[in-house]
Amino acid sequence: MPVSEAQRQEIEQLRDGTNSTLRATVPALEEMLYQPVPVLDQGFIRVIDYMGNDAAVVQAARVSYGRGTRKVSEDRGLLRYLMRHRHTTPFEMCEIKFHIKLPVFVARQWIRHRTASVNEYSARYSILNREFYIPMPDQLSAQSKDNRQGRSGILRGEEAARVLAVLREDAARNYVNYQEMLNEDDDGNIIDPKHQGLARELARMNLTLNIYTEWYWKCDLHNLLHFLSLRADPHAQYEIRVYADAMMEALRAWVPLTAEAFEDYRLGSTHLSKAGLDVVKRLLGGEDVTVADSGLSPREWRELMTDLGREG
Amino acid sequence: MPVSEAQRQEIEQLRDGTNSTLRATVPALEEMLYQPVPVLDQGFIRVIDYMGNDAAVVQAARVSYGRGTRKVSEDRGLLRYLMRHRHTTPFEMCEIKFHIKLPVFVARQWIRHRTASVNEYSARYSILNREFYIPMPDQLSAQSKDNRQGRSGILRGEEAARVLAVLREDAARNYVNYQEMLNEDDDGNIIDPKHQGLARELARMNLTLNIYTEWYWKCDLHNLLHFLSLRADPHAQYEIRVYADAMMEALRAWVPLTAEAFEDYRLGSTHLSKAGLDVVKRLLGGEDVTVADSGLSPREWRELMTDLGREG
Amino acid sequence: MPVSEAQRQEIEQLRDGTNSTLRATVPALEEMLYQPVPVLDQGFIRVIDYMGNDAAVVQAARVSYGRGTRKVSEDRGLLRYLMRHRHTTPFEMCEIKFHIKLPVFVARQWIRHRTASVNEYSARYSILNREFYIPMPDQLSAQSKDNRQGRSGILRGEEAARVLAVLREDAARNYVNYQEMLNEDDDGNIIDPKHQGLARELARMNLTLNIYTEWYWKCDLHNLLHFLSLRADPHAQYEIRVYADAMMEALRAWVPLTAEAFEDYRLGSTHLSKAGLDVVKRLLGGEDVTVADSGLSPREWRELMTDLGREG
Amino acid sequence: MPVSEAQRQEIEQLRDGTNSTLRATVPALEEMLYQPVPVLDQGFIRVIDYMGNDAAVVQAARVSYGRGTRKVSEDRGLLRYLMRHRHTTPFEMCEIKFHIKLPVFVARQWIRHRTASVNEYSARYSILNREFYIPMPDQLSAQSKDNRQGRSGILRGEEAARVLAVLREDAARNYVNYQEMLNEDDDGNIIDPKHQGLARELARMNLTLNIYTEWYWKCDLHNLLHFLSLRADPHAQYEIRVYADAMMEALRAWVPLTAEAFEDYRLGSTHLSKAGLDVVKRLLGGEDVTVADSGLSPREWRELMTDLGREG
Repeated sequence: MPVSEAQRQEIEQLRDGTNSTLRATVPALEEMLYQPVPVLDQGFIRVIDYMGNDAAVVQAARVSYGRGTRKVSEDRGLLRYLMRHRHTTPFEMCEIKFHIKLPVFVARQWIRHRTASVNEYSARYSILNREFYIPMPDQLSAQSKDNRQGRSGILRGEEAARVLAVLREDAARNYVNYQEMLNEDDDGNIIDPKHQGLARELARMNLTLNIYTEWYWKCDLHNLLHFLSLRADPHAQYEIRVYADAMMEALRAWVPLTAEAFEDYRLGSTHLSKAGLDVVKRLLGGEDVTVADSGLSPREWRELMTDLGREG
Repeated sequence: MPVSEAQRQEIEQLRDGTNSTLRATVPALEEMLYQPVPVLDQGFIRVIDYMGNDAAVVQAARVSYGRGTRKVSEDRGLLRYLMRHRHTTPFEMCEIKFHIKLPVFVARQWIRHRTASVNEYSARYSILNREFYIPMPDQLSAQSKDNRQGRSGILRGEEAARVLAVLREDAARNYVNYQEMLNEDDDGNIIDPKHQGLARELARMNLTLNIYTEWYWKCDLHNLLHFLSLRADPHAQYEIRVYADAMMEALRAWVPLTAEAFEDYRLGSTHLSKAGLDVVKRLLGGEDVTVADSGLSPREWRELMTDLGREG
Repeated sequence: MPVSEAQRQEIEQLRDGTNSTLRATVPALEEMLYQPVPVLDQGFIRVIDYMGNDAAVVQAARVSYGRGTRKVSEDRGLLRYLMRHRHTTPFEMCEIKFHIKLPVFVARQWIRHRTASVNEYSARYSILNREFYIPMPDQLSAQSKDNRQGRSGILRGEEAARVLAVLREDAARNYVNYQEMLNEDDDGNIIDPKHQGLARELARMNLTLNIYTEWYWKCDLHNLLHFLSLRADPHAQYEIRVYADAMMEALRAWVPLTAEAFEDYRLGSTHLSKAGLDVVKRLLGGEDVTVADSGLSPREWRELMTDLGREG
Repeated sequence: MPVSEAQRQEIEQLRDGTNSTLRATVPALEEMLYQPVPVLDQGFIRVIDYMGNDAAVVQAARVSYGRGTRKVSEDRGLLRYLMRHRHTTPFEMCEIKFHIKLPVFVARQWIRHRTASVNEYSARYSILNREFYIPMPDQLSAQSKDNRQGRSGILRGEEAARVLAVLREDAARNYVNYQEMLNEDDDGNIIDPKHQGLARELARMNLTLNIYTEWYWKCDLHNLLHFLSLRADPHAQYEIRVYADAMMEALRAWVPLTAEAFEDYRLGSTHLSKAGLDVVKRLLGGEDVTVADSGLSPREWRELMTDLGREG
């Protein structure tokens, strides 16, 4: 279970206290506020706070004294225009804060997005919990032969069983040894009174990279969209993509017009190089273009044909 | 008057609509929300939105599931500890957004703070208003002889009158010529039907640097404190310091415990170099230290003696 | 003339002193080093320093101990792959520093790129020179009727003459009054011994936005490409685009393979939305698509048809 | 051994090729260029490239056409002034790039400095080496009782032996299982032809946090000083501090005047709060101040007395 009973009570307490505000609010996101959305076997995301809404983007683009526009249709048109033409600064005017529980090897990818603010649970200061990510059988993928950073097919039978057993046993054994080095058991009691206990900042190095950590992660809407465009993408590793997918749900609740424009112009979009556009124009003109006279490398040609839904 | 009647009505409309939220709210800041606080002769700041409060800093520092702590005294102690030891990341977890009207030469200093988000009124797209900053007589300062970027004394008599007249006349004349080049009068009517009108993006170059511009400016609490530590400082130019002073008021309303710690540990604080600390220790030990045997340059010695409230 | 005789001598001195280094060097860029390239009537860019070359991007992408690869063809392939797939971090590993002289209204646009390091000549501390940007007659453009931030056509005859006269006279008069308020003439002599002189930080506000300023501007290759993709674009204002064009020349000298990939995949490229791509597929399939059944707004349809080189 | 024979040869090759340049060079840093400086048991730092020197900071502060100043004494004075008064932007004008090999748990602390550029060896794409950090016996510290994120005393005897054995065995076993899951041995041969091999991006999660990774890390001089002020500090964890210490050596070789000013004004310096300064003034005035009438909390009083070298 991703959160304990005590934690759930703390969350409930927060959800009990309605306040009144003159700020813009988003009822659909208020609905989700503080509640953990499970991700992977023990992780979650939960929205902790937010600032602004679709109208705040419009308001900033116009540097207006009031709300910006009244009419939703005008707001929608402007938001789509801004998204299409990559006028990104007005999207920086909204902000969102998440509490996220995730495996350390996922956290290591995630932290490469430098434009967010982060407060992570400190394993220098505190003791980590006995929680590790173990993939579901349908995610126990083999190494791809074509793509060095990809997966291909699912491990089965004895190999799959062996992998799962190794992941479970190694994580568990290393955790027990972590506790023994700390000289402290699950309840915080000393294990061996003759021992001093290794410093926490050292003992943690024995843990495996699938242990769960937690952090508060806050960023603006523009940078969130950038994160999602990379991490909700099929090329992203599954274990981070599921977090991005859960965040997409929060995005749709929070800024529905922005989310729609983002899905239309960014997520499902294609980039055509100068040479690629030239090929498209020739094809539209009825010409029979081949890779040899396309001006593209075989790899680029293949990528273009895939984008256009044609056989290369 | 810093805002027009129409703008004031838009602001009133925003202040009329109370919403309910599960987020943390700060009644003292809600009180100020949207309302312009006059700064200089025609400028203002107004708080447009905010996210978080003192408790949100605590909550992030603890990566907690609930509110962090209950007791204000514990929160205060932790906030002061974080401030004293420059643990800055938890302060990034709060965010504030201002609408600011300010002269262009002030905007040019301000924008050097790169960690904020900004949307400025575009003089490429729109026509600027006929509003210029003219200093009050008590700010019409002479150039300092000692400090090349400082002021010293106030201009008086005929010189003061002449300066004020020049500033007013040059700004006004250049604005009239701006309109003439645009071929558009105050009401948006064409001045001379035989003229085409110069492009806005070009015509603006005739305006003086004291013309007012406006922007939305948003940053997190940590970066706001950094801004204030530089701009609410006596070494800052008066024309930006008055904005920082007005923002200090918003800070005190928003995060009173953080503001208190900031004023104690940052604003009124002193930095002692290794050699400076050594001098203090020797003085405390009863030694009679002189600049010659202090290990400090004459300039550093003077700065230290001033900090310690002693004659050099 | 953009640089004075004394400045040219300083530059020559720098170009006289060859040093030996184990670092990667780029002879074509060394050729340009320190030399001002004129831009607009009185401005310039000059490359002051650089770090890295095409191979350094490859080396970082591979985290290699030596130079990366030996073969130029392999480097080229990898650089094109990185550019095409927006793997941007290896491009951050090269750095370049410019000294730029530019009008203040251009500097105001430029500074919005927050990822660069900047040191600007301080008008708080020093006195600015009597140098203003006055457009060439072929850039004295009328305001576009369709595009609120665009130009369209050239002013002619009496209107053009009047505009040029105004720009020259207002800038000159305001500069003379700036000196009079400072109480200091071109040679640094006091004008009126009975006057104190207004503080520099105040007097500057009387200057017009076409006065020239100077700065050192340094950024990494990735952020330079981002800057160029926005500012070497036909939608950028002419007065900043000419700077970007001059920097493109430095780019081609510095990192020729990266520059080639950038021009192929970024500068001349097109972005197709999900719906836009769908229209292309239907057209390629021989269907007769109209704006009404395209799923695009009339504006998007027009933009797409223009990109595809078809009549809407 | 931190680098292999093949890697050492690649490094030697780079050190063989002298180039000529018009850029500023620093012979003392050229001496170190490319050479690995060992840190911890298997790690290293090596300087890969640099841009600028002490004079470049001066040059930028002056926005000069030539080298800035000629006289070292003037440069030194200006650099010390900039450092003392936290005028940080000119220090951004120099840049340095390191190749660093470090344990993953250290990399996780390090990456929190967001203003650097990083390219890390990808365990998603490649297989990590069998190299783990095992502390030296004199760094096998016990957990501090007073300071939750500190060490205190050294583990001895049977406890120390047990900890070292656990760290070695768990890391080694998990690595063997990593290889088995990948189905690939040290020489890249398939272990079991009937197995597919788990995807690299998954298998890595079985590794322990003391495994070594590598990255290229580049930042400007200002941000390097910020990094060093936090990580070369006695409060930093030993395992990152030794990297910072090695980088301090590179700093001293590269920008000796800046390094001197940094050590005088930043590393060895003390911060006095408003209330702390007040206590110092009263003590200097001969008053007998106690914690009770100091206006300080007991903790702050203790910190102040320690700084002043007095008993509380």
